[in-house]
Parts: sequence; structure tokens; C-alpha cells
Amino acid sequence: MRNTFLSILIFIVSLPCIADHAPIAMVIHGGAGTIRRADMSEEGETAYREALETALRTGFEILTNGGTSLDAVEATIRTMEDSPLFNSGKGAVFTHEGRNELDASIMEGKTMNAGAVAGVTILKNPISAARAVMEKSKHVMMSGRGAELFATQQGLEVVDPQYFWTEKRWKSLQKALEDEKTASSNAALDENPDHKFGTVGAVALDRDGNIAAGTSTGGMTNKRFGRIGDSPVIGAGTYAKNDTCGVSATGHGEFFIRWSVASRISDLMEYKGLSVDDAATEVVELLREVGGEGGVIALDAKGNVSMPFNSEGMYRGFVKDDGKVHIAIYGD
Amino acid sequence: MRNTFLSILIFIVSLPCIADHAPIAMVIHGGAGTIRRADMSEEGETAYREALETALRTGFEILTNGGTSLDAVEATIRTMEDSPLFNSGKGAVFTHEGRNELDASIMEGKTMNAGAVAGVTILKNPISAARAVMEKSKHVMMSGRGAELFATQQGLEVVDPQYFWTEKRWKSLQKALEDEKTASSNAALDENPDHKFGTVGAVALDRDGNIAAGTSTGGMTNKRFGRIGDSPVIGAGTYAKNDTCGVSATGHGEFFIRWSVASRISDLMEYKGLSVDDAATEVVELLREVGGEGGVIALDAKGNVSMPFNSEGMYRGFVKDDGKVHIAIYGD
Repeated sequence: MRNTFLSILIFIVSLPCIADHAPIAMVIHGGAGTIRRADMSEEGETAYREALETALRTGFEILTNGGTSLDAVEATIRTMEDSPLFNSGKGAVFTHEGRNELDASIMEGKTMNAGAVAGVTILKNPISAARAVMEKSKHVMMSGRGAELFATQQGLEVVDPQYFWTEKRWKSLQKALEDEKTASSNAALDENPDHKFGTVGAVALDRDGNIAAGTSTGGMTNKRFGRIGDSPVIGAGTYAKNDTCGVSATGHGEFFIRWSVASRISDLMEYKGLSVDDAATEVVELLREVGGEGGVIALDAKGNVSMPFNSEGMYRGFVKDDGKVHIAIYGD
Repeated sequence: MRNTFLSILIFIVSLPCIADHAPIAMVIHGGAGTIRRADMSEEGETAYREALETALRTGFEILTNGGTSLDAVEATIRTMEDSPLFNSGKGAVFTHEGRNELDASIMEGKTMNAGAVAGVTILKNPISAARAVMEKSKHVMMSGRGAELFATQQGLEVVDPQYFWTEKRWKSLQKALEDEKTASSNAALDENPDHKFGTVGAVALDRDGNIAAGTSTGGMTNKRFGRIGDSPVIGAGTYAKNDTCGVSATGHGEFFIRWSVASRISDLMEYKGLSVDDAATEVVELLREVGGEGGVIALDAKGNVSMPFNSEGMYRGFVKDDGKVHIAIYGD
């Protein structure tokens, strides 16, 4: 009886706070591609669901405690970078030469500040390096050794490149290299579409109504020539603008760059008055028409979430004010 | 008498051809920044005007002979890369470490194919390397050694890095380094705004109504950490879409990336129905408001040209069907 009374009292007292606060929300992805229910073991699915939930809860806790969307995005992506399941950080795929070259970017919707790193090989958490570029340098985009030098000067955690070695990714590279011997390199790459689109991303909305977005990736298995995909390209893989939305993309990066996917969604909202879901869906549909496989996650300042994709599956999830975690993997 | 008759006959015969053909047009820039009449010698101004005219005529001749806009853009930019006057190719500025790291990108409005290279040090003409990435690889963006390896395999001209050494640029670096000793690095960079925004770019429209755009740069004097500016970023420094326009930008690259300047101009035309001049002007005005100095050149499929900038000057010029070359440098 006393407990019930107390609960009711707490509820009534907290009502104005709930009303005062802007909504918070968090949406993530762990890559898109040929992800089929039939190919996934129960064990594997559980592992992905748990990793996605951990990531979402990490960022959501920060938002619930009044933290910034920028902190939430960085912390969320770090958990995915530290997991071997996703193609970013620890789980990054191998280049043709058997290296791991990582890309990441982050953007803040309030100031439209942004930071990105491309082709880094010794930074444990590229998303934190991207944030350091944004906050501690006059630049937006840094690459290779220079980016590593800067991040090291900023005190970010450096690891031996061996840290990124995982058996699963190494086998993927060996398979890709073998396939290349027996087929054209186009065919070889097309046989690994789920590896090709591995990326992680997060978009968050905090109590102050500020949006932030970030993306991190190991790129494409067997990539070469210092290839840079869409993940570290502001406007392609990542975008955030409080007036419109935050976006993180995952897919066949070349198409996402050519269509400026992330900023196009923002522009469709700003210049054509579309809702975040209509804008994101229109761009993903456009990509399908031109042959660009993948998807996006997007979030507006009211907490509306959109997660469209044109591939068979996309690791994804979101959580809003009510704290209920939604996770999905397949297209059905 | 016979000559007059012949001229009239040729004119009458050629009339249907003129009517049949879509308009051709070519617009270029050679960088924006603090370019003041008072600071420029008559000799210097003549040299810039002549180099701009040579560049324009090179591309225009290709267009007049029925060549593609892509060929015109590449050939035009190559003449500017080969000139020591502009901050691209031969005239590239020096990085903090005394190197020349070049960036370039190119895009075709018909297919929306694109190519870019970042941080290359041994390629004589980065714009041709960008085109090779677009046409000969599955990727859009390549960087550093990998990009150099690819371009070399494609048979592009390789030079000793010493080729890019020019006394003028070397002195600029020495001055920047000295300034850094006596002031904050922010102040030092701000004292060299005209070097900071050195870039060349071209946009062309061919007889088939196809638009192409390209941009090439040596980046920022005294740049470090593998900094990548907007020039090799599709959607920021370069964009082309036949339905809307072609754009090449020059300015404080970090702002141009964060505002997705080139694709924003295209989106304003596509989603808000603006003319190319209104769209380009609106974006350059937006940049002024947020502190992003520079300008753009833009061209639509009807041959309408726009060259807005918010800095003191921008090396620029255009030529249309009538073959009359227009060159301008200052803001007045």
C-alpha cells in the first residue's frame, strides 16, 4: 500500500520533468547486405542481437542521464568497434595486402562541426579519432599516417595492427583472394556482398534537442589502392543538422558518395519539406534504381526514426524515451 | 565580291547546324581568396589572365569540335596544373613537412560517375588520375601510395616529387613556418588566406547536353596530418548531374565539406526549383554567414553560368557558343 502510494507520488512528481524534456532517441546499424535468416545460426543471431542491444543501451544511458548526443554516438560506436562481430575496429576486414585500414566520421547537428579519419591502422577506436579531428584540429578530414600522428598526439589509444587480426576476417580475405584467381575481380567482390557493406553507425538525439551522427568501418574485404568509401565522407556516409536530421549510411560506398546520400536526405527535408522517413526512404529507393545496395538510419529532432534499406538485411535497432529496445536483422 | 558571296553561302548553310546543336559552355576558376587589385602587379595580372584564357580556349576547342565535356574539363584543368601560377599540379603549395600532396576529383553529369585522388605526390596531373579512378576502377576515391600505384599501372605520367618545387611556394611555406614561431598556428594560417584557398576547377557543357566538372589542388600551405580538403570530396568540391548542374568549388575546404556545398547547389535546383545562379548564390551567401570564405563556379544544361564568391577575389572566366572569352579576377 505504502509502495503503491510512493510509486504514484513519484509518477506525479516526475510528470512535469517528462513534459519539460525534449524526447531522446537513439538508432544504430551494424551493416547491411546479404543477411539471410536461412544462413544464420541461432547462436550467431543471439550474439548479434546482444551486441546491438549493448550498443543501444550504452548510448541510451548517456542520453537518459542528460549526456550529449555526441557522447552517446561515440560511446555506442566504440562498443561496436570493440566487438569482433562488426566490420569496424576489432572486427575490421582485411585489405588485399592483408592489412586493416579503418575509416570513421562524426558530425554534430547543432554546430555542423564534423571530423573524419581515413585509412588508419593503429587506432583502436577510429570514431574517437574522428571526434578528436572535429574538436581538436582546424580540419575535418585526415588520412593515413598523418591522422595517426595527430590522434597519438591527442592521447588516443594506439594498438599493434595485430590487434585487428581475427580468424573470420582473415578467412574471408583468403577466400576472396582464391576467388580472384579463378574469376574476374568483379565477380570475386560480388560474391562477398555482406562483407562488402560492413559498417557500424549511430544517430542520437539528446535532451537539448541536439542531433549527432557517426559511422565507422573497416571498408571492403580485399580492397586496395588506398580506397576510401563513404563512411569517412561527410555528406555521403554521415550527416547531422538539427533543423533536419542525423544520418549514418551503410552500403556500396561508391554509390553513396556519388549520390551524396546522407546530405541528400537532409536536403530533401530542408528544401522539399519531406518527413525524415519519406526523405530516407526516397533516397534508399533511388539507390535501388541505380544499383546501389545498402541502407541508412536517420533521426529527426522530434525523435522520429527511419531505418530503410534495399538489401536483404540490415543489423539495426532503436530506443526512444520509453526505454524499450527494438532490434531487427532481416528484411521480413 | 566572290568572297562575300561565299561567306553568305557558308552562313546560310551552317544555320541549321547551329540551330540543331545544343549550346556549349565552359567555366573555370583558379582559386579564391584575398586577391586585391592593389597587391597585383600589371605583369602578374597579365600572366594570370593569359593562363586563364589558355585554359578556357583549350577546353572550348574540344567542345567546339564535338568533344565531350569530360575531355574538355580534363584538358582545361591539365593546363592549369601545368602552370606554376595556380595551386595545383606544378604550382602546388607545400605541406608542413615540405612536401607537395595533391588532391583532385572529376564527375560526369550523365552517368554520375565520379573519381578522386587524395594526397598523391608523384603524379604530374592529378585530374587525369581522378579520371582513371572513375573510368578504370570500381572505386570513386583513392588515396596516397595506393592511388599512386593505381595511376602508375594505368600508365599516367609520373614525376620526381622535385618537379613540384617552385621558389614562390617554398617561400610561402618558410613564411608560414616563421609566423608559426611567433604566433599561434591559427593566426599564421589566417595570414595566408590567398594561399589557403588555391584551387583550380572547370565545368563544361558539350553538344550532347552532358555536363562534367573537375577540381584540382595542392591544398593548404603548411597543412599537416594528411589533411584532406573539399577538392577530392564528391559533393563538397565537385558535383555534376545533367538534370541540375555541374559545380567546382574553391575556398576554406572544411566549411565546404560540412555544408556539402557542391551537391547542395544541385539539390537546391532539384528540390526547390531554383535556377543555377540563384542556387549557387544562395549557398555562397550561406557560407558567408557561417564564416566559410570562397566561391564556386556552376553551369546548367542550358549553358547558364554562375560564378559567385564571398572573398575579395576569384580567378575566373567563361566562354559560351559565341566564343567570346570572359576573364575576371577581382570583386569589383
